[in-house]
Formats: sequence, structure tokens, C-alpha cells
Amino acid sequence: MKSYKIDPDSVLDFRNNVAFCVGTGRLGLALHREYFEQLKLVQEQIGFRYIRGHGLFNEDLAICQRRPDGTIEYNFTYLDRITDGYLELNIRPFLELGFMPKVLASGEQEVFYWKGNVTPPRDYAEWNALVGATLRHLVARYGAEEVTNWPVEVWNEPNLGGFWENADRKEYFKLFKETIFAVKTVDERFRVGGPAICGVDDESWLRDFLDFCRDERLPLDFITRHLYTIEFPEQSGRYGYPKLRPLENATDETKGSRKIIDEYDEFRGMEMHVTEFNTSYSPITPLHDTNLNAAYLAFMLSKLGDESASYSYWTFGDVFEEQGVPFTPFHGGFGLVANGCIPKPAFYTFKFFKNLVGGECVLREDDCVVVRCGDVYKAVMWNLDGEDKGITLELPDGVSSREYSMTIETVDENSCNPLQIWHHMGEPASLSKRQLELLRQHAVPDVTAGLILKARAIGIELKPNAVKYVEFTPATLTPDWGFDYGRAQRA
Amino acid sequence: MKSYKIDPDSVLDFRNNVAFCVGTGRLGLALHREYFEQLKLVQEQIGFRYIRGHGLFNEDLAICQRRPDGTIEYNFTYLDRITDGYLELNIRPFLELGFMPKVLASGEQEVFYWKGNVTPPRDYAEWNALVGATLRHLVARYGAEEVTNWPVEVWNEPNLGGFWENADRKEYFKLFKETIFAVKTVDERFRVGGPAICGVDDESWLRDFLDFCRDERLPLDFITRHLYTIEFPEQSGRYGYPKLRPLENATDETKGSRKIIDEYDEFRGMEMHVTEFNTSYSPITPLHDTNLNAAYLAFMLSKLGDESASYSYWTFGDVFEEQGVPFTPFHGGFGLVANGCIPKPAFYTFKFFKNLVGGECVLREDDCVVVRCGDVYKAVMWNLDGEDKGITLELPDGVSSREYSMTIETVDENSCNPLQIWHHMGEPASLSKRQLELLRQHAVPDVTAGLILKARAIGIELKPNAVKYVEFTPATLTPDWGFDYGRAQRA
Amino acid sequence: MKSYKIDPDSVLDFRNNVAFCVGTGRLGLALHREYFEQLKLVQEQIGFRYIRGHGLFNEDLAICQRRPDGTIEYNFTYLDRITDGYLELNIRPFLELGFMPKVLASGEQEVFYWKGNVTPPRDYAEWNALVGATLRHLVARYGAEEVTNWPVEVWNEPNLGGFWENADRKEYFKLFKETIFAVKTVDERFRVGGPAICGVDDESWLRDFLDFCRDERLPLDFITRHLYTIEFPEQSGRYGYPKLRPLENATDETKGSRKIIDEYDEFRGMEMHVTEFNTSYSPITPLHDTNLNAAYLAFMLSKLGDESASYSYWTFGDVFEEQGVPFTPFHGGFGLVANGCIPKPAFYTFKFFKNLVGGECVLREDDCVVVRCGDVYKAVMWNLDGEDKGITLELPDGVSSREYSMTIETVDENSCNPLQIWHHMGEPASLSKRQLELLRQHAVPDVTAGLILKARAIGIELKPNAVKYVEFTPATLTPDWGFDYGRAQRA
Amino acid sequence: MKSYKIDPDSVLDFRNNVAFCVGTGRLGLALHREYFEQLKLVQEQIGFRYIRGHGLFNEDLAICQRRPDGTIEYNFTYLDRITDGYLELNIRPFLELGFMPKVLASGEQEVFYWKGNVTPPRDYAEWNALVGATLRHLVARYGAEEVTNWPVEVWNEPNLGGFWENADRKEYFKLFKETIFAVKTVDERFRVGGPAICGVDDESWLRDFLDFCRDERLPLDFITRHLYTIEFPEQSGRYGYPKLRPLENATDETKGSRKIIDEYDEFRGMEMHVTEFNTSYSPITPLHDTNLNAAYLAFMLSKLGDESASYSYWTFGDVFEEQGVPFTPFHGGFGLVANGCIPKPAFYTFKFFKNLVGGECVLREDDCVVVRCGDVYKAVMWNLDGEDKGITLELPDGVSSREYSMTIETVDENSCNPLQIWHHMGEPASLSKRQLELLRQHAVPDVTAGLILKARAIGIELKPNAVKYVEFTPATLTPDWGFDYGRAQRA
Repeated sequence: MKSYKIDPDSVLDFRNNVAFCVGTGRLGLALHREYFEQLKLVQEQIGFRYIRGHGLFNEDLAICQRRPDGTIEYNFTYLDRITDGYLELNIRPFLELGFMPKVLASGEQEVFYWKGNVTPPRDYAEWNALVGATLRHLVARYGAEEVTNWPVEVWNEPNLGGFWENADRKEYFKLFKETIFAVKTVDERFRVGGPAICGVDDESWLRDFLDFCRDERLPLDFITRHLYTIEFPEQSGRYGYPKLRPLENATDETKGSRKIIDEYDEFRGMEMHVTEFNTSYSPITPLHDTNLNAAYLAFMLSKLGDESASYSYWTFGDVFEEQGVPFTPFHGGFGLVANGCIPKPAFYTFKFFKNLVGGECVLREDDCVVVRCGDVYKAVMWNLDGEDKGITLELPDGVSSREYSMTIETVDENSCNPLQIWHHMGEPASLSKRQLELLRQHAVPDVTAGLILKARAIGIELKPNAVKYVEFTPATLTPDWGFDYGRAQRA
Repeated sequence: MKSYKIDPDSVLDFRNNVAFCVGTGRLGLALHREYFEQLKLVQEQIGFRYIRGHGLFNEDLAICQRRPDGTIEYNFTYLDRITDGYLELNIRPFLELGFMPKVLASGEQEVFYWKGNVTPPRDYAEWNALVGATLRHLVARYGAEEVTNWPVEVWNEPNLGGFWENADRKEYFKLFKETIFAVKTVDERFRVGGPAICGVDDESWLRDFLDFCRDERLPLDFITRHLYTIEFPEQSGRYGYPKLRPLENATDETKGSRKIIDEYDEFRGMEMHVTEFNTSYSPITPLHDTNLNAAYLAFMLSKLGDESASYSYWTFGDVFEEQGVPFTPFHGGFGLVANGCIPKPAFYTFKFFKNLVGGECVLREDDCVVVRCGDVYKAVMWNLDGEDKGITLELPDGVSSREYSMTIETVDENSCNPLQIWHHMGEPASLSKRQLELLRQHAVPDVTAGLILKARAIGIELKPNAVKYVEFTPATLTPDWGFDYGRAQRA
Repeated sequence: MKSYKIDPDSVLDFRNNVAFCVGTGRLGLALHREYFEQLKLVQEQIGFRYIRGHGLFNEDLAICQRRPDGTIEYNFTYLDRITDGYLELNIRPFLELGFMPKVLASGEQEVFYWKGNVTPPRDYAEWNALVGATLRHLVARYGAEEVTNWPVEVWNEPNLGGFWENADRKEYFKLFKETIFAVKTVDERFRVGGPAICGVDDESWLRDFLDFCRDERLPLDFITRHLYTIEFPEQSGRYGYPKLRPLENATDETKGSRKIIDEYDEFRGMEMHVTEFNTSYSPITPLHDTNLNAAYLAFMLSKLGDESASYSYWTFGDVFEEQGVPFTPFHGGFGLVANGCIPKPAFYTFKFFKNLVGGECVLREDDCVVVRCGDVYKAVMWNLDGEDKGITLELPDGVSSREYSMTIETVDENSCNPLQIWHHMGEPASLSKRQLELLRQHAVPDVTAGLILKARAIGIELKPNAVKYVEFTPATLTPDWGFDYGRAQRA
Repeated sequence: MKSYKIDPDSVLDFRNNVAFCVGTGRLGLALHREYFEQLKLVQEQIGFRYIRGHGLFNEDLAICQRRPDGTIEYNFTYLDRITDGYLELNIRPFLELGFMPKVLASGEQEVFYWKGNVTPPRDYAEWNALVGATLRHLVARYGAEEVTNWPVEVWNEPNLGGFWENADRKEYFKLFKETIFAVKTVDERFRVGGPAICGVDDESWLRDFLDFCRDERLPLDFITRHLYTIEFPEQSGRYGYPKLRPLENATDETKGSRKIIDEYDEFRGMEMHVTEFNTSYSPITPLHDTNLNAAYLAFMLSKLGDESASYSYWTFGDVFEEQGVPFTPFHGGFGLVANGCIPKPAFYTFKFFKNLVGGECVLREDDCVVVRCGDVYKAVMWNLDGEDKGITLELPDGVSSREYSMTIETVDENSCNPLQIWHHMGEPASLSKRQLELLRQHAVPDVTAGLILKARAIGIELKPNAVKYVEFTPATLTPDWGFDYGRAQRA
């Protein structure tokens, strides 16, 4: 049983930017009703500010087309529909510029089931025109005040050959330079970043990129990278089974990038946005749907702000097609929400951390964060020990001298584990209405509560892979005239 | 640990008419938004066919008015609005004719906070005209096919002096005779019943009523009475604290009435509708909000059909004003739903028994009912023993020879007990949005599941006052290509 | 044909506070679903900031009660439900303190079908305690920042014997003094006003009130009065048929009050809020449902801001019971919306004037107001001439030198006149679904549009009692590749 | 002025099956939110029974896939989602089996922007397995009672080389034979038809097909074909501008097919379903959005039942991609609803004819149909004369001897012509919220009404391309006590 003492007067550094941004499957999927319902659920209960995904310029959005006479023309019908939907849900695009429209591409290499072209433009002037036209259209439709607050990122993971032909560093730098000026020409208030690299081999990439930006005096606004925290998975049939990285190494990559950035006079302290993170980088990893994933992410959310301005969970939902259309509701997709609008355990990790936003941090440990909002204390706790665990919070005088109501929301393998219920239904690929209803009914945290009268300490039990949200609110028992709770039970 | 053997081939007598009718606060409250939201919840999850309440002719509905020159005129504005709302929710009125419009009344005696006049008409012609005009209006608006299927009951509890001036038996019989003919004159397909009596002193009342109907050759269609199963409560401040009747006496009153009816050649086997039942007859009885109430009602629902054609729970929701406006969300109202649209434990007792409708009964014990729907077995179990309890179901060959998925929904003092959570919040009279959210989140049954492979028996544990719904559905584990549930957890 | 020249550079004084506040039937009706639906419609399409109605302390809200032992207790269950509903619709209470709870009253005089007690408190300490408890409760629930922005008015029309026993001036002043201090004691940021007087005999009342406030050094924040602009109506059966006041006298009463206020050094320029206005002061005046009313109100909305800080239309909807429950959908209620959620012509007068909010006034005539919002011009026009009429707008150079799209919304006796359609249905008291659908379908403004290419003037035709909203937006015809509108028609 | 006499006693033959089926863009688009919203609008206001579209087996639905080891596997995730959505909207699939999954195809020929493979299977066993697996899955999920009522059609327009490689007649017959048995093997209650041919060159095709079915003794259930009624269009840029066929030839093709079918003893009288019809066969024909189209379709709907069991309008909405993603809201798509959920004039032609369903036809002329439902008369009228027109209905005695209310809904170039409003906005590709609101507000029929007292005839005026719906309902003017409509206006 660990014991932590809460001192309400010493405010700790805890940069909790959990709700800044979230990832999404290719933008074309944002036209789907199931996508919208999942995002609606996420926005109602968590509420992210930005959303980032691939495929802005993919064929299915139909933005960039060429007439028989060779003229380029733009079609913003779907982009408008998608963006209207986002704004309706109070979320905004974090614009990732890519991949390459077929009619502008220099080659034929494609990525994913949905066939994004990952080759450089055959003519940078056409690419710049596309970027400019798209942003100008958005500005015209939604207003410059609004749109210039949408961050702009150039391409995705150009350090990987699958996402950028030959992982051609020099070509990416060229793309970056062309693009940043194309964007700033529309409105110099746009904030632009890159290089959106991913993985362990990125050190020289980042240095080269920063050298380039410095040497070319590019008006870089922020730096981006990705973070996945598994070892290479074993494959079985359609699915992958990885090991998680040890907690002590989980943020090595972002720490490394931070260190590199801060070595430059020009970039020291510059915002670094982790524009993708998750445990596994593969959308067919059953781990994603487990309580273990939820607990591991709690650890991550307690640490990531130390080096990064934001960290965008990849992805909010399971309407996703990179490896094809999912065969079953629980297929190990990235989503916080499974298809059928069923929240996964990780959904609540994000909801609980969102609850902490705005509070002053008064405790931060490897398995627990506590913040204070006036008289109210809010805590998230998690258990990655692999066995039952207890955490004792020693309450500050302000709490121990008066009456409090404590409410606890629990997500663990018994109380909120839709994967298990689905398994016990026989792992059906098609859910009946009744099965769906039961899964949704199950997929909510267990709620318990208690009245605390001048208690000096509170012990909280956590089962393996549990994540709990605990709230202490001043409350006095005020029974109505003649109401007696205990007597109500005796009949 | 009790053990029951399920024999799928011997069909037992179990007349489960749980969803025939439900009670409501005075009809004027049906104009309220909160009322509608609560009824919507009830209809979505349970789904009753009829709804019965007092106050059709009360002043707040404004149906019957007198102009300065003495003319009577009718105003159906609110009646239409209420009835439209009911039909929108797929529920229909069980018409209780009463109480007396002030402009028709012979006296001034009133009942309830909302002041229903309970005196006979000063002129039966005016009363008959009101009844006729109201029914004709409904027929004109909704069609005779629809409206003549709405049962009609004459007055409420005329054997109690509070509901009918002096509990004047002869005067009630006169009212009944006048009214039944007033109704049948509109359309003889209307089905009319009474006398809606309540309590232990009703034996001679019922005999006198049946004698009267027989002697006057009245076209009686069904007989009605009420049933409450508590001893006289102790009062404390605003609230009452009764003892429940022993289970073995719980249905004595309906058995008694059934016996009396069946003594008459003319009425033997006639439908008896219990047009109100609950444990306590008072809407400020904290017992109503407990898990004990839910478990006691499970017992009642397993028995009531033995003598009664239907039994209407009093009431669906807590928008109710007989003893004034409730001071707190959990004030011991009759409702299945607490104000704020929070289901109480009893809500799920009804939902679970509704799930059994349409099945063939294969087991009926004092703490358990099981039905079969094709290959699927559905059970409700409850624990009124005051201590932990186990029930073993010995499964029939059809189940024990193959694979089944078992899902269990549990309502007990830990898993679905909003009264307790509210108590631990300090018993607030005004709920914050956050408190309301937590209470609703808590007020759902716990869901667990399991795969059963050729099992001969299943043991179910029940905590005190638990009610469980268990469903056995044929299911085969069909993992997708490479999916391994166990391996997903090991990362 | 009148002709007006728009000069975009000379900004005219036009204090358009059309959406500051709107009236409502007694607060208890705010519990109704139909009320909420009507208010939702109003808020979605017009959007008022405050709502003011009678009956805060009436019995049906059940706020103030006395136990058998004489103790006073408060019940805020319904007040919370109502206020939650208002905030959900983004509207806030303009708190009118009154009438008198029966348990505090000194007498038995009542007003309205719903029986508001209009006598002074028998003990001012109890009254002050009620006021204090109510405001403290609201502050505790919704926060002081929010609640202290809700204006507070003391009683309603105390200069009329029907609303305040004997129209006792001295007693009202006492009430006012007690109340203003009771309010300011809770939080001195509350803004308090009175005397909410009504009618032509109010001159000495206002002077006496101001004398009293000055002499007693009361912290008065604003002054309130009412304004109805009809002559005494002729009565026929249930309904009243008044004549409208000539336009030139329509605002005489507010002008008079303004003059009196400005005679006091202490109160010169103080905000005067017209907390009720309409044509007729009776909710059974068929005039309310006509296009004439809509046009007359357009005139009023163009003038009322000259003397008054705000002017609250009495009332938003027809869920209203002062003279009893309405017998038919079109019964001459005050509402902008008829029962069944059917907008009346006046609804659109308010919607059109709301469209003008935020613009700079560039034209203000007796039948026309034009504002400019950047490049966009917005106009409301109306016709009270009793015959067809044309208005020519001479467009400013900024318009006449480029392309504009003009859209016109028309409400007149042909295009948006649900009263007439209902009449032609036979004036049914109960609307079928089909009738309701047709009435709603009809009750929308007619929309026409045109492209204007370098036009110097535009003529607009108005039928009698028409109200039109005209908008000029810069627009260039931009046909898609090969699209030819004219050719589309020739097939 | 034409004059028609209504004789309520002579019932005319009018097979009005307007709502049997409607077309849709490729099934994959049914995942879209905009698609669902448009279909919801259509179902709420019109209500079709079946929906038919291409692309069931297209890659975007992902049903048929091949693993690396060559095994075929099926994925019904999207098919379930789509079908659930249809059933939620109370519409059912009319199953068109096609096109060819790439992994089963014998060639590479594709059709449409969305690349449907139109080659025969390389192995009919694989095709039959796919058909069987799909239907068995649907039966398992939705029940055999439900699913065997979904008609099945084999392929689409195999007589056109674009839709079936080389328009290979013999190969189609083989496909048909294989498929009909594959379907009937799942459940012989399935009803199967073909050949879904289109155009003027189909005579020998149909005969050959019927010969084949007869010779092979195939269990054919119905025959299908398509019908488009334009001449070959002129092209300009992206758009096509056709001429409509003369009315007298509009149904020549269906008459011809009917005649051929009836020449066979085996097939005489067999159901012929027109599984697609419209004026133009191209989704970029501005004609589709006009009032002319609406009026022409009214003529078609009055005639098509003469030879055909049903006739499915191609298509319900403009979420459609055969020629690419639409560039503007009004681009001449097939839809009854434009993107943005704006009903086009043709929407109301269907709504009006749906209103006639269930009535007995008492008048059928080239510009007018009247039906009787009890006491109510319902008429649709249209004007294809190119100039103003009047139609006089001579009313039957039952009407002319009593009081009636007449309501008229008008769709013409002034009253419901969103294309024109959009043109006058400048033909914007992206609609602002305000523009969308105005377009929707405009796109409803104008409603007028009148009371008819013992009238012998009624004259209705129709502007060019007008479609009107007129309803005569018995109604008596019943003014409330003292209510005087005329006096209400005089104030």
C-alpha cells in the first residue's frame, strides 16, 4: 500500500494538454454517419480541440482534378461537408497537408488499403497552387480569424519509405520549404510545422531538418513527431501481438527530440507537438481494446506534457481503413470508441484526465495525479503492477477538518471491459441489437460514493489494469425533514 | 444454495401481464416535460400498453366549464395534448372517470394537494353529458377502432371516505349505473369496469357491488380493485416508514376478491384488473426507492397473474403531487423513475419481467422464474432472504449438450442503488449536472457474461435484495483469423 | 411609391434592443412540454436574452410552504427545473418578485384563472426571508456571476387594483423599500427596479415613486413600466375586438414617462425598461394573430428604443392561462407562436428586427429601417397604409457599382397567414396531424431572390399589412464549367 | 380552361405504385451521414418500401476478399451497417447482385468514377458462393421472413457494353442461370428477376432472355427493365442538355416490353418492374432540378402503372458519384433531394402521388388524377402546356351538397423553385448557413385554403410546369363562442 501526502499549497508542474488534439482515420471517412456518431460521443464526454488525419488531398475527397484540356480544377464539396461536421461538434482541423493527388503526382507508389499516393509532386507550382487554393477556400468559408488558428503540418512520416517515396530527406525539405511559403502567402498568421517523423531512427532526420530550417531561414512555428511505445509485434493471421515498452523508456523518443531541439539557439523551447501517439502503431492490435492499454495510457498522459506541447491520440474511433475494413467490432483498432459506438477502457482514461484540466497539480506520482480546483480535489490513479494494489491519499487539513463527498469511477477488467463481454458472447462479427445494448450498458465506469467526515487519509484499492477517477467535493449531509436513509432500508 | 431443475418440456402456468398498464400522477401533470421524459424512458426500456391516472375531469385539465349564462361548455385542448403525447409514446389511456368538476359538484370535499372534488354530481344528467361528450370527442379525434379499446373505469376507491364523500356505497352504485350506460351509449364496444376499491375492508363492498350489477343487469365488463402490501407506517416529519407484509400474505386481498367473484354464476372467471398496486400507498415512503422494494416487487410480479388479468404499478414516475411537490429527488415517490430521469431499482424489475413476455414458463419458484423462447432461456431471480444466497439452475439437455453464452444483469445494493449514491452525496435537494450524470451512470444494471460449454448446472449468487436477469443464448466461439483473446491481454 | 436614399456614411440613431427580453405566461407553465417546444422555436429563430413572467411565488411553484408547527420552509424543486430549462435554451430570468404566497398573505384577493394572491405580506420579515432565500438558492445553484446579471423587478402593475389590493400606493412603496434591501443584502450587484406600472393614469404614480426613492435614498437601478396600444375593446362572447391607437400616439406613454424621469436630477437618463408591451392587453384578442398586428409591431420596434432601454413583448407563446385554458389554436393569445408550435406573423417581425442587430442604421423611416453590416445591407419594411404600397430604395454607390444578390422574405396576408388557413379549415378546435402540418408549412415567409447588377434603385412592393425583410449581399454569378441556368429550363 | 366531371361511383383503373421502390447511388454511399439525412427526409415525407442501387459487391463495401493463401473470406461489417440504417428508416433493399469483386473478376473493365468491375466471374463457383454467403448472412441477421421479401435482381443493364463486358448476351444468361439457382438454394421463397436492360435496342434482348428462361425452365419470378425519356443530350463543359421525349412516346418502351412478355404463354401477365426511370440518364443534367422535370414526372407517375408492377425513380438523393463528386449543390443530379437536404420540385411530385395511395380513382386525365378516400377527395394536377392553364373540376353531388374545406399545395416556378433562388444567389458552390436556410425555407409548397359551401365546380389555375395537390375534406365552419374571423382583421 503506497501512501502519498497531498499538500495543497505546493503547486507541481503538470502540463496536462490531454484534449488539445486527437487523431482520425482518413478524412474521407468523416463523411460517414458512424464516424460522426463516434466523434459526437467523444466530443460530448471528452471534448478535443483539434482533429488530425491523413488524406486531405486523397482521391476520395476529390479536391484536385484535371479536366481533359489539362486545366486543374478544385472541388470542395466534401471538404466543406466534413469541416461543417467538425465545427458542428466543436472540433477543428489540425491540417496535415498530404498525400499527393494522383493528377499532381510524380510516381505511383501508394500507401494503405485506401491507396494514398506518396510521391512528390511532378510540379511544385501545381502543389503550391493546390495548397493555396484549399486554404483560401477555407478562409473564405469560415473566416480568417477561425482558420488561421488551425495548425498546419506538412506531410506525414516522411522518414519512412512507405509514406514518402524512398524516404527522400532532401525532397521532403524541398516540399517543406515550398509548402510553408505557400501557406504563409495565404495568411502569414497560419502556424506551420513538421517534419512529422516517426520512430527510433529519427535523430539525424530531426537535426537535418532543423539545420535546413535554420539555414534557409524558414518561418517554422513548431516541430512535430510521433510516438509509439511497443516492440515489434508477432503476427498471427490478421492480428499483431506486441510487447509494451518498459515504462521507464516509454518517453525516451520525445525526450530525445526535445533535447535535440533545445540544442539549437534558434529553436530552443519551441513547441513540439506529438501529432500521433499510441501504444501500437497498427490498427489490428487486440491490445488496444484492453484495460491494460487504458492503464498504460494513463501513465503516458501523466508524463507526455513534460517535453511536448501536445500529444494527439491516434485515433478517436474505429471507423478506419488503413489495413482494410474491420471484420469484427473488437479487432484492435486504434479508436477510443469501438464500432457500434461502444467506448473502450481507454476512452475513460482520456475522460478522466480531461476532468483534471484547469486544476492545480498537488500530487504527481507514477501511478497517481491529483489536482485541486478550489475546494474540490480530483485524482486519477492507475495500476500497472500486474496485481492488486492500494493507494492511500493523506488528505490536506482543508479536507480532513470538514465533511466531504467522495465519488469514485472505476474502469477495470470487471467493471468496464467490453472486450471481455464480447468474447463471452462468442466474439460475434455482427452484433445483434441486444448484444450491442448490453455492450454499451457494460462499457461505463462503475460509480461508488461515500461521505467522509474529518478523515485524515483515504485508501483506494485498484485491481490490475484499473484506472480510477476520484473526486472529493465539500458536502454536508442535509436530510430533508424526517428523512432517514437507514430506516428506509428496514421494512 | 437452492437447486432447481429446468424441464423445457413441462410448460407451467405463468400469466405474466407485467406490461399491460402502469399508473401515473394526475393527468394534468402529463403536460409536463419532465413527465414526458420519464415516460419516454419507461416506454423505450419497458413499454407498457395502457396508463391510468386520476384527475381526468379536474380543474387543471379545464374540460368542463360553465358560462355566465349557465351553459356547460367543454374544452379539450389539454386532453388532446396529453393524449397525443401518450400515443406518440405508444401508450394508451386506461380511462378512470373522475373526479368531479367543481361546476358539476354537489359538495366541496376535496382530496390531495391538487384538490380533486370527490362529491357526487349535483345533476346526473350533466355528469352523463360530460362523460358522453368526452368519449365522443376522443372517438372523433382518434377513431372508434382505437378508442373503444381503451378500458373505462368508474371513479377511484369509492370505499374510502377521502375519495368519495362518506364512502357512500349506494351513491357509488348509482354513479356506476348512470356512467356505464352513458359510456355504452357512445359506443357499446367500450369495456367498462369498477368499483376500484382499496384495502382490507372491501369484502362486503365487492359483494354489494356484484349484487347490484347482477340485479340491475348492468353490462359489466370487468372488475377492478387495488393492492398495497404494507402495514400502517410510522410517520417521521414528512416521511412514512412501513413494514412490508409477509410474502405469504402479500396477495391475500386479490385472492379474496377472486374468490368472491367466482362465487357468482354471472361473474365467475370475469377479468379482475388490479388497477393500482405497490408496496406502500404513500408517495413519501423512502422504501420505494430501495433495492428491497425492487426485490419484493419481483416476487409480486411472479404471483399476481394467478388471480388477476392485470396489475398496474402505481406509478411510472415521480412527477406526482398528491402530497405536494417533492422536496428532493429521492423522497420515496411511487415512481419507477426518480426526478431527473434516474431509474430506481424497481424500474429494472419491470424491465426484466417484460423480457420474459412471450416465453413458455419452465420454472416458477418463490425466488426465480425461467421461461424458454425457442433455444433461448431467460430467467429472473431475486433474493428476499436478508442474506447472501445462491441459486443453482440444472440445465436441460438441450443446453448442456452445446455451447451457450450467458449474460447476467444485476441490480443490487452495490451495483444499482442510486439512493445510496445520493445519500453519499449528502442528500442534496438540488442536483448539479455532475451529480445527475453520476447518478444516471450508476443507475444501470451491472452486466457480466460467460461462455458455457456443455455445462450441466449453473450457480448464480445473489446479494441481499438483488434482482438478476439471466439469459442463455446458443453461441459458438468464432474467433476471427488470428484473433486470440487471451493473448491480447499479455503485452 | 415612396423613395428613400440610403447614405451609408451617415449613421442614424436606432437603438434596436428587440431581443433583450420577452414575456411569458406564469412561470409554472414553464414546466410544460408544449411551452418548452414553443420557447425552443423562438430561441432558435429569434433568440432573446431574458424572459419575464408572473407567478414566481405562486402556489403551483410550491416555493413557500408552512409546516404544521408554523415553520416556513422552501421548496425549489420546480424553480430549479424551470431555470435549468431556460438556461438550456440560452435565456435567463428577468425576475419579477410576486405574487404573494398564500401562507404569507394578509388577505385573500386573487387575480387570474390561476389565482395569484395580490395582497401585501402579513409580515414583511417573512417576505424578505422568502426573497432572500430564493435569491441565495439561485446564487448557490447557478453562481453569483450568472445570477446577479438577472434583473429584479418588484411586483407587477401595483397601480391597478386587480394586481395589488386597492392599488395601495403607500403599501407598494413599503414593499419596494423592503424588497430592494432584501435583494441587495444577498448581493449588492443585483440590479433592482420598479414600479412596473401600466396605463394612462400613471403620471402621479411615477412621480410619487421617484419622490419616494429619492427621499428614502433607495439604490434604484432602473425604472419599469408597461405599454399597450389599443383603445378599450368591444367584447363578443369570449373575445375582445379593440381599435389600435393611431401611430402618432402609439408611444405617448413611454415618452411621458421618459420626460418625468428626466425631470429628476437623481434619475435623469436612468434606464427605463418597458417590461411588457403589445397591442392588446388581453389574451383573447383575435387581432394578435393577424398580419396587421405583425405590421403594427414593426412600427413599434422601429421606435421604442428612442425612450426605453428595452421593451419586452408580452408574450413569446400561447401556453398561457390568465383567462383560462384556450379553446382553440387561434384564440387571439399574446404569443408569437400559436399552440401547436405554429409561428404567427408577429414572430417574423421579431425575427427580422433581430437580423438587424449589430448593423449601423443608414435609414429610418416610418415604414422602413435599413442597416449596414460591412458590405451587406439589411432592411425591414412594412405597410400600415391599408392598401398596396411601393418603396423604392436608392442604393448607395458601393452597391450600385457592383453585383449583389438580393433576397426577400415576405410575410403578408397571402404568404404567411396561418389564421386565414385555419379559418378556411373551418376553425377547428382540435387540429389533426395533417392540418397541423399544413399550418406549419404555410407559416413561413415566402422567399424570393434576384441578382442585381449595378442597379441604382430597387423598388419593393408591399401588400397591406405586409412585413418584408430584404438583404443585399455582394455576389457574383459564378457558373460551374458548362452550367447554363437558362438552358436547364429548355427541354 | 379544361373541365372534368368527377363521378365518385365509377372507379377507374389507376395502379399507383409510386412508393414501391426508389433508386440510390452506390451502396457504399449509404454509409454517409448526408445520404442518411436525405433518405430520412424522403422516408418521413414520402416513404418508399424498397431501395435499389449498384455496388453491393464493389470494393468499398469490402464484402469479398482473398487471403494471401488464396482463401476467399467475407466481411459484412459495412453491409450490416448499411442495412441496419435502411431498416431504421423503414426501407428495405431491392437487391441488385453486382458488380464483380476484383478478386473474382475475369477481366479489368470498370464502370464509373467509383470503378465497378463489369466482367464475368472467372469462376462461377466462387460467384455462387459469394451470392449464397451474402444471402445466408442476411437471413441469419434479419430473419428469413424479412429477407425473403427483398426482391433479387441479377446485374444491371447487361445489354450495354459499359455495364457488362461486350454486352455479352450469352454470358449474361449463364450468369442469370447460375445466380437464380444460387439464390433459390438459400431459400426458395426468394423472388428473382432480370435482365435489367435499358434502352431502345432491347427488343431482341428481351425475347432472347425469355426464350432462355423458358427453355432452361428457370424459376423466373419477375422481369425488369429501365426507362429514360430523353433524346441524346448536347454536352457543354461538365453538363448535358437533352430534350424530353414527347409525352405520347414517353412510355413506348415499357409498352413494347409488356407486349413482348405477354406474347409468351409462360410469362403472360408476369410482373414487370421498371427498376430505374427518370427523364435523363445522366447525373449532370440541370433539367433534373427544374419544375419542368417535376411536372413531366407527374405525367409519368399517372401512366407507368398501366404496364409495370412498379417503377423505381432513379434516385432519391444527390449523394451520388457515378460521374464524380458534384461540384455544386444544383448540378443536375438524379436526386429528389439536393445536397444540403433541399427538396427539389420533383420531391413533391412523389409526395403528392403518395398521398393518393389507397384512394379509389375517380378521374384520370393527361393533366390530372383524382381519387376518393371515403368523403375526402384528393387530386394531383400538372401543367406541361408551356403556358398558364386552368382546370375546372365539376364536383360530385356528395361534395356540392355540403361544406368542404379545400387545401391546395402548389409547386411551381415561383413558389418552390430552389434552383432559381440558388441561381439568384450567384450559383455558389459552397452554401453559407444563411443561404442553406433560405433555400430550405423556399423549397416547400405554397399552401392555400378555402371553405367551399355547396359549390358545383372549382377552378384551379396552374402556371407553366406547376404541380398541385388539392384536397377536399368535409368541414363545417364552427366558430368558438364570440370568435369572428372578419372582425379580427379590423382594428
